Amino acid sequence: MPELRKDPVIGRWVIISTERGKRPSDLAVEAPKCRGGFCPLCPGNEDKTPPEVFSVRELDTLPDKPGWTLRVVPNKFPALVGEGDLNKRGDGIYDLMNGFGVHEVIVETPDHAATASTLTVEQFKNILLSYRLRMLELKQDKRLRYIAIFKNCGEVAGASLEHPHSQLIALPVVPKRPLEEMAGAQSYYTFKERCIYCDIIRQELLNKSRVVMENSDFVAIEPFAPRFPFETWVLPLEHRCSFETTPLEKFSALAELFSTVLKKINSALSFPPYNYMLHTAPLDSSDSAYDHWHFEIIPRLTKVAGFEWGSGFYINPTPPEDAAMYLREAYPAGSGKP
Amino acid sequence: MPELRKDPVIGRWVIISTERGKRPSDLAVEAPKCRGGFCPLCPGNEDKTPPEVFSVRELDTLPDKPGWTLRVVPNKFPALVGEGDLNKRGDGIYDLMNGFGVHEVIVETPDHAATASTLTVEQFKNILLSYRLRMLELKQDKRLRYIAIFKNCGEVAGASLEHPHSQLIALPVVPKRPLEEMAGAQSYYTFKERCIYCDIIRQELLNKSRVVMENSDFVAIEPFAPRFPFETWVLPLEHRCSFETTPLEKFSALAELFSTVLKKINSALSFPPYNYMLHTAPLDSSDSAYDHWHFEIIPRLTKVAGFEWGSGFYINPTPPEDAAMYLREAYPAGSGKP
Repeated sequence: MPELRKDPVIGRWVIISTERGKRPSDLAVEAPKCRGGFCPLCPGNEDKTPPEVFSVRELDTLPDKPGWTLRVVPNKFPALVGEGDLNKRGDGIYDLMNGFGVHEVIVETPDHAATASTLTVEQFKNILLSYRLRMLELKQDKRLRYIAIFKNCGEVAGASLEHPHSQLIALPVVPKRPLEEMAGAQSYYTFKERCIYCDIIRQELLNKSRVVMENSDFVAIEPFAPRFPFETWVLPLEHRCSFETTPLEKFSALAELFSTVLKKINSALSFPPYNYMLHTAPLDSSDSAYDHWHFEIIPRLTKVAGFEWGSGFYINPTPPEDAAMYLREAYPAGSGKP
Repeated sequence: MPELRKDPVIGRWVIISTERGKRPSDLAVEAPKCRGGFCPLCPGNEDKTPPEVFSVRELDTLPDKPGWTLRVVPNKFPALVGEGDLNKRGDGIYDLMNGFGVHEVIVETPDHAATASTLTVEQFKNILLSYRLRMLELKQDKRLRYIAIFKNCGEVAGASLEHPHSQLIALPVVPKRPLEEMAGAQSYYTFKERCIYCDIIRQELLNKSRVVMENSDFVAIEPFAPRFPFETWVLPLEHRCSFETTPLEKFSALAELFSTVLKKINSALSFPPYNYMLHTAPLDSSDSAYDHWHFEIIPRLTKVAGFEWGSGFYINPTPPEDAAMYLREAYPAGSGKP
């Protein structure tokens, strides 16, 4: 069983995932790629994944058979396992617990070669709605305290399968980054009695220089202090701490804006590898006045090296004002008539 | 002039380095490589770097001419600039200051093809002593508050030049990671009145399962909650918060242990790309009872993806107890008779 271990100094949790290879020589071997070969996420290979927990599929088609347009399945090589108790314990000065949790894969489309530039807004909306649905379902389990949703696109960005997919990891602890964001936002709220993200949005919409685009309900900005060139955030204009409580009627606007931003990034940066991550409140604080959910998109253009790992300080060669200008002007790749 | 900008939520500083390319197409262009071509760090090319600020060289040789065995030069493309004032200021809710600081390159050897496995212990000692010397020199400037020392070895680890070198960045602010380590260590000290790193060393030396090697003054361990496979820490046995105050007579023992650990990593993992970073106290707190300097070595074997970026949570497939066993048994590569 995997273990969750806590760094005793800075409190960072790590998963020691003993399911995978341990020998030094195993580390050179990457997870199986489907590039040009067999793909376990393609239609017809449904029996190569664990049984689906959710799908969007044609009427009269059976679970785990073709006919789907989106499919959510447990990860076949999960970082955490969904059974057993936490067994929180100490070992001298150290803290650990069992690696309980949920690790799912959202297969975004049956089309192996699809990109953000070929998916329709409707497909993109279904992806976002599937995140919401799985979060609502999983938050029923009170052992789970945080749900991380993320996408790795491209080998450089850590994708081990080429087929378009995103992932969900539900954890029995709140990770370090959301805790830091909460602490910072709470401290600001204590001082000002306002949500810091709402204030950021207000200042950005007045200033405009870092705004990529906006619509009725959402805005995409380059943050003031981005770690990476073309780092882009997508935020709801209206204050809301938890993604999964966003009303259904907002998802068309979200899908339209989010997918256009990805298409602009594909266009400006020639289809770069990228990650995106949902930042949302912990499951047990779904009514906070100071958290404000958002997505962070990171094109993987620069390498993270010793300075960044050692200091938590980043060197970014592209001012966000320049990146915003390029993205505002970029034609969304793939949005032309076929 | 570069800018230092602070993330308003979690307080992370970034350097917006406007000296380098801004256009999207520039981001695909890496810094000039010397692989198989011209190397600005090789002997004979001393005029291709800014004038040296320190060197170890033969008697009767001139600065910025051949005859050196180690050379410290300002970075030709610095992330920060060593002139002007800080001009700390606000911009609405945001905080920024001028990108004042120092960025130096430690050219570790004249031998372009050297590795940790071919450098002698004496050469390694000179590298470590040059870190100490530059830190003592730069800490005279009271505008500087933290010095980061790090090495990127291999393209995957972010090295833009192949010639063996490490880097020093002196900053007018204390970065997020040292602040977090200080906060964690201080909180432990307040509770226990003991240094947490001293307690870690004590527990590891009793338990042995994560110890790679030790000598009279230093120990190398795999930490209890490592982010990465084969992440390795080198710590002084005796409590000391600041690297640069380490007595000169300890450097032979440090060089011997640190270089042996790198040779073992080269042997066990077939000369992986790696980073190492010095973790040390801020310049103005050089007498702290709870900080404890150490080096962290990270072989770059796994990719960091969306989950890690978004959550600050890491998935590590190799238990540190296994990694320590492999490293204890590994023959230090290159240490045999030629």
